[in-house]
Amino acid sequence: MTQQPTNESRLERGKRALAEIDGEAGHNVVAALADIAPDFATYLFEFPFGDIYCRPGLDLRSREISTIAALTAMGNASPQLKVHIEAGLNVGLTREEITEIIMQMAVYAGFPAALNGLFAAKEVFARRG
Amino acid sequence: MTQQPTNESRLERGKRALAEIDGEAGHNVVAALADIAPDFATYLFEFPFGDIYCRPGLDLRSREISTIAALTAMGNASPQLKVHIEAGLNVGLTREEITEIIMQMAVYAGFPAALNGLFAAKEVFARRG
Amino acid sequence: MTQQPTNESRLERGKRALAEIDGEAGHNVVAALADIAPDFATYLFEFPFGDIYCRPGLDLRSREISTIAALTAMGNASPQLKVHIEAGLNVGLTREEITEIIMQMAVYAGFPAALNGLFAAKEVFARRG
Amino acid sequence: MTQQPTNESRLERGKRALAEIDGEAGHNVVAALADIAPDFATYLFEFPFGDIYCRPGLDLRSREISTIAALTAMGNASPQLKVHIEAGLNVGLTREEITEIIMQMAVYAGFPAALNGLFAAKEVFARRG
Amino acid sequence: MTQQPTNESRLERGKRALAEIDGEAGHNVVAALADIAPDFATYLFEFPFGDIYCRPGLDLRSREISTIAALTAMGNASPQLKVHIEAGLNVGLTREEITEIIMQMAVYAGFPAALNGLFAAKEVFARRG
Amino acid sequence: MTQQPTNESRLERGKRALAEIDGEAGHNVVAALADIAPDFATYLFEFPFGDIYCRPGLDLRSREISTIAALTAMGNASPQLKVHIEAGLNVGLTREEITEIIMQMAVYAGFPAALNGLFAAKEVFARRG
Repeated sequence: MTQQPTNESRLERGKRALAEIDGEAGHNVVAALADIAPDFATYLFEFPFGDIYCRPGLDLRSREISTIAALTAMGNASPQLKVHIEAGLNVGLTREEITEIIMQMAVYAGFPAALNGLFAAKEVFARRG
Repeated sequence: MTQQPTNESRLERGKRALAEIDGEAGHNVVAALADIAPDFATYLFEFPFGDIYCRPGLDLRSREISTIAALTAMGNASPQLKVHIEAGLNVGLTREEITEIIMQMAVYAGFPAALNGLFAAKEVFARRG
Repeated sequence: MTQQPTNESRLERGKRALAEIDGEAGHNVVAALADIAPDFATYLFEFPFGDIYCRPGLDLRSREISTIAALTAMGNASPQLKVHIEAGLNVGLTREEITEIIMQMAVYAGFPAALNGLFAAKEVFARRG
Repeated sequence: MTQQPTNESRLERGKRALAEIDGEAGHNVVAALADIAPDFATYLFEFPFGDIYCRPGLDLRSREISTIAALTAMGNASPQLKVHIEAGLNVGLTREEITEIIMQMAVYAGFPAALNGLFAAKEVFARRG
Repeated sequence: MTQQPTNESRLERGKRALAEIDGEAGHNVVAALADIAPDFATYLFEFPFGDIYCRPGLDLRSREISTIAALTAMGNASPQLKVHIEAGLNVGLTREEITEIIMQMAVYAGFPAALNGLFAAKEVFARRG
Repeated sequence: MTQQPTNESRLERGKRALAEIDGEAGHNVVAALADIAPDFATYLFEFPFGDIYCRPGLDLRSREISTIAALTAMGNASPQLKVHIEAGLNVGLTREEITEIIMQMAVYAGFPAALNGLFAAKEVFARRG
């Protein structure tokens, strides 16, 4: 991530990180929360993005590998998997690398999880042209 | 992985990859299968290690990040998570990086999954001194 | 639940409980089972509703809290989660309380499970106006 | 499965098994993989169908019972469950038997998993007339 | 199951079925419930065993195949998987068939689930000699 | 929770909430994190306890009902389930109510999840005498 200004709050830092990593998809999730649970949007900025993704001990590329792998394996969070396939591309993973991560999940979570992950990637890749 | 001899079979290639990645822990799993399902040991060599881990499109470091993340998130395969925390160290991940991957899973699979992953890592790290 | 007539069978008691708790949504599930597995509709009346929900040791409000929390955390039963968000409103939970239960699941099952639960609630709340 | 020619490769054997078991539905999955992960189609032929389903120790009918039960219980792989409900019919399971397998999953994975499985079966049965 | 006397209650029928299928292991589970939730033992007799396992549409052998497959795939119910590996043997599945069912779960739930299932079977087989 | 001093930080508030809700069990988890991931202990104080459990929209009793239900249903976080069975008792749930919540999970996550939850409760209740 680009260098952080000093004295930035968790919320500001998280907003900046979410914009940089998830782009428009992240913005849409937050907008959709506005009328039902605006505080949850704040938590989403603060904890995952302001706290975790900004930690120095692991680069963003590796963080997105982790997330794509986990969401593919869990197999019950398709919208979030698509957001993070986009995020993976945003932080520099290639389409081939993302495809490899998802294929590997066949070993740990079974062929259906990997197949559904590949079809999610196909949809994201097609949308981005 | 070290360069592959030509004409190597999937089984040979998988055995070599398993030894390089998982070390003794991989060997123990295979030995434990000998009397109940020896063919399954063959499949384990062939598909995950001979086919998937040897593919050129993703480096071993990224493959182990994927596996540690997925097994932490799934939360129901503690022995295999420990094997792959060791494998992560074997392919060059630092203890700090592994800890970061596991902590991040709190975001995607909840705090209990991350806590149980951290305690698995603590056990592996202690055993290796 | 309203007072039970004596000598009521499990099936009758379950039908009454299902109608009181799940309302029309429960009726629709049972109707959809008629041509494929009518006996399963009977079991659904008898065990969950005739046996469990009618037990005196826990009030209906607490039972619906339990169910909304569990279905949000499991993340693989969206139609049933929506039925029970309605049921929660039927037995007296407020929209705010339901939103809090779902948000809390971010801690135990991760942010994607909570997000998907919140969007299910948003849909149910909008339908009820 | 019909008798196997000698010297058939895993890939050829898997293609033959997939066609026999999954029919058109299996073909569609493989076609959909062509532009994103053609190697994964190869693995799908080779490991599940060329290796596992062709093993002599368990008949195809029992293999499809296992798969329908597992996918119903896991509850996060609806497209694959539908493919295997069709496959179950292809290898000789009756609609009643498939319905019984799915209903039984209420005991092990809960009523929502069984309900969603029954509705998947209802859709497949209707499509086949 | 052996022929059922007429006028048998669900509870009596379930007790008989549990004894026939699960043997001593089923008895132990029920005994362990006595001081914490005796009613749950009653439900366990009545719904899974009195209602489901006694239904005529699927033979007991196929029912145990379903249960072993599902519990292996879910991967979070090791004590119950062991009980049903025993039950599978009790209703006529061979050790080889049980091993095949569990191995097949590598395809649908990943290699760790299958490995942990095989080690559960190894333990049960060893105990029975 | 007892009234909150003004100007309390999230960390202080979370420490106070964790102590009040989880008691010694919460303290032990935090202590076990000290040498592997001390920052994760901070996050655990801050987000689940400082942010979520302190929110005014849902009473602590209902929050513990939610957590016990979810962890029982997920079935892969036994240590955390035991901590929250204790927490449930700490915030005023009776043993009977906790037993009812867990039994109800048989409906949503299957009998094995409920059985394993009941045996966890049995262990906690016995330890507390």
